Amino acid sequence: MTEELIGNCLVAQSGGPTAVINASVAGVVSEALNHVCIEEVYGGMNGVLGILREELIDLAEESQQNIRGLRYTPASALGTCRFKLRREQDYERILQVFEAHNIRFFFYCGGNDSQDTADKISKLAQSKGYALRVIGVPKTIDNDLVTTDHCPGYGSVVKYICSVVRETALDHEAMGQHDLVSIVEVMGRNAGWIAAGSTLAKAKDNPNDAPHLIYLPERPFSKDKFVDDVQRVLKKNRYCLVVVGEGLTDKDGNYIANSASGQDAFGHQQLGGIGDFLANLVEENLAVKARSSKLGTGQRAAAHCSSQTDNDEAFMAGKSAVKAAVEGETDKMVILVRAEGDAYACETSLAPLSEIANGVKDIPEDWIAEDGVSMTAKFIKYCQPLIQGEVNVPFENGVPSYVRLSRRRIRKVLDPHEFE
Amino acid sequence: MTEELIGNCLVAQSGGPTAVINASVAGVVSEALNHVCIEEVYGGMNGVLGILREELIDLAEESQQNIRGLRYTPASALGTCRFKLRREQDYERILQVFEAHNIRFFFYCGGNDSQDTADKISKLAQSKGYALRVIGVPKTIDNDLVTTDHCPGYGSVVKYICSVVRETALDHEAMGQHDLVSIVEVMGRNAGWIAAGSTLAKAKDNPNDAPHLIYLPERPFSKDKFVDDVQRVLKKNRYCLVVVGEGLTDKDGNYIANSASGQDAFGHQQLGGIGDFLANLVEENLAVKARSSKLGTGQRAAAHCSSQTDNDEAFMAGKSAVKAAVEGETDKMVILVRAEGDAYACETSLAPLSEIANGVKDIPEDWIAEDGVSMTAKFIKYCQPLIQGEVNVPFENGVPSYVRLSRRRIRKVLDPHEFE
Repeated sequence: MTEELIGNCLVAQSGGPTAVINASVAGVVSEALNHVCIEEVYGGMNGVLGILREELIDLAEESQQNIRGLRYTPASALGTCRFKLRREQDYERILQVFEAHNIRFFFYCGGNDSQDTADKISKLAQSKGYALRVIGVPKTIDNDLVTTDHCPGYGSVVKYICSVVRETALDHEAMGQHDLVSIVEVMGRNAGWIAAGSTLAKAKDNPNDAPHLIYLPERPFSKDKFVDDVQRVLKKNRYCLVVVGEGLTDKDGNYIANSASGQDAFGHQQLGGIGDFLANLVEENLAVKARSSKLGTGQRAAAHCSSQTDNDEAFMAGKSAVKAAVEGETDKMVILVRAEGDAYACETSLAPLSEIANGVKDIPEDWIAEDGVSMTAKFIKYCQPLIQGEVNVPFENGVPSYVRLSRRRIRKVLDPHEFE
Repeated sequence: MTEELIGNCLVAQSGGPTAVINASVAGVVSEALNHVCIEEVYGGMNGVLGILREELIDLAEESQQNIRGLRYTPASALGTCRFKLRREQDYERILQVFEAHNIRFFFYCGGNDSQDTADKISKLAQSKGYALRVIGVPKTIDNDLVTTDHCPGYGSVVKYICSVVRETALDHEAMGQHDLVSIVEVMGRNAGWIAAGSTLAKAKDNPNDAPHLIYLPERPFSKDKFVDDVQRVLKKNRYCLVVVGEGLTDKDGNYIANSASGQDAFGHQQLGGIGDFLANLVEENLAVKARSSKLGTGQRAAAHCSSQTDNDEAFMAGKSAVKAAVEGETDKMVILVRAEGDAYACETSLAPLSEIANGVKDIPEDWIAEDGVSMTAKFIKYCQPLIQGEVNVPFENGVPSYVRLSRRRIRKVLDPHEFE
């Protein structure tokens, strides 16, 4: 029987925001209030940064409207960070803050870097004999976490991109006068999951629908093949719509297009400009007009066109994290498990944090077609259920109406900690 | 009393598509069927191009679902063109096609170039003694037509951009770690109406909301002022969100950023890249991270986030065009007229085509604030009503479901005409 643990819980968010990461927080808060062993429900501001700074807020004091509003509010209502904990004393500081506020349940919503951080915090607590249960909540538009079938955040970004691609394609189709190539640049640093998902913009009964070509980081980019691909499409259609993941690389693994700004704090290269790069390639090599668009940060925050399935699963993941912790689990991340069979159904399970931290889920080889620029039926079967259902976002004065938390701060009891 | 005219009608679409130009066609078709003097309801494919080629379709034969679906389907269901009629023999060809198919009512949805074309066709018909009534239907996301209070298409692009700006801003707000500048590049060649509209993303009670800076073609761009503006915002906020119209110029009227592709068929310069240009300026001058996004063609086709008010008015404009023609009017364009008083109400009236053709509506001087980067209350009062209400677009399989017309062709009776 699990030893009973009583104390406060803390939830925080890390890494790039998504359209549904707040739904996960809403899930944590709603579920936490069901359990008497959880006394206070705190939020950590800006991920581990806020914990280092002892910046905690009282989530139980938020109004019910606010917590309900989190269900459809994009971005990270608690704030987020890309700060990487590196120093031993910073991990110890985290534990001091936990101890000072009697945090016994820690829920961290994030990708693999964040789950790695959560794992290390948990290990340190164990080594110090501090009773703490740590459960990760998966989050990433990139869909690259291992062990989970898919990641909350992914379905929504795909749904939005498919909508934009379908609308853009209708526009191009109408401009029937001359050949036109249009490049839509989407996010995706190392994996092409997002670009791949754009294939769902095609209507089932119309294989000539856009996107006509999908370029993924999984396939080394060749200029000659690209020019040939575009020419092939233009022979059939008056326009060619290309979707490209920002992280396209050459055969040696070098990014095709780089922004000036170099790298982020985790050593990831910051990307941009592949859309313009491809548009220029077209104009230089084919004497055909080319346009590009770059959906930018807005794509991962597009709650106004987000997936109800994704949203429900993000909420469920938050609730499951709390249930697992209360039941005595720790050092695990909630994962989404797809039921066998043709009808889509999804439930949660758990996987060790250490497993998540060190893996990156690639697109299976046979989900990318042999032409390298389209997806197979297996991918479509996988991805299609994830974008189903429309989140009904309230509008006020013509614009989506989202909530901001009131963020009542918990009084600090520790001295400041130097870490930056 | 107006002489009774009996015959067929033709509707066509021209210029850049919008989210609601098909709603105008739906209005024309629905209204045309109410009048016995209108025998057949034809559509011209790809604007004047299709008329020159005698490519007409039978709109009365389309299913009722299809015509209803036009109400929310973006882009130009009849196809569009940017072809400029220049030669006398081309105008005469248009009239031959009209005569061959007994077209007595012509409805042309487009901007000022299109209304100019419509005017010239009408004048030629009059000089030849061919009884024809020509009524223009306003269309342009740019909102730059004179005499009309605003243009169908404008409210929808503004609504979408405001939604994206608000969502992007929430994302940036969450990334509280370091200073960040984010540039959103929007359409708008000569007039900043679209960029200006993004001000509606601000919540009424929060003047520090994004967008923090709006750059309009109406104000000559100065690098020094830009850098100062951004610095000023960053002193107050951790991030600065900039919206910029693509057609920004320097004090001599030269575009700040040009694409390689030069000019379009009307001699308009094709633009692109101002967002990246500004992002680079920030990184070079302020050592602050900058991102850019470019919403591209998708913004004018974003029916999934379009304005019901705009949609209703586009439909009404189509209906009004038919009513006016049946009542004997010709050489006019339908205009939208705003009722006096505080409550927004809009009705239609008519203005001479020749007036529309030669004018461009600028943003009134006192609608732009003195700082040159924000809008005054007068602009907000003008623009706010135009984005109200959400069009309920049906989704199928997770993606907006739009209609394609079946396009049953009318048999050609003339010899082909050489014009390209």
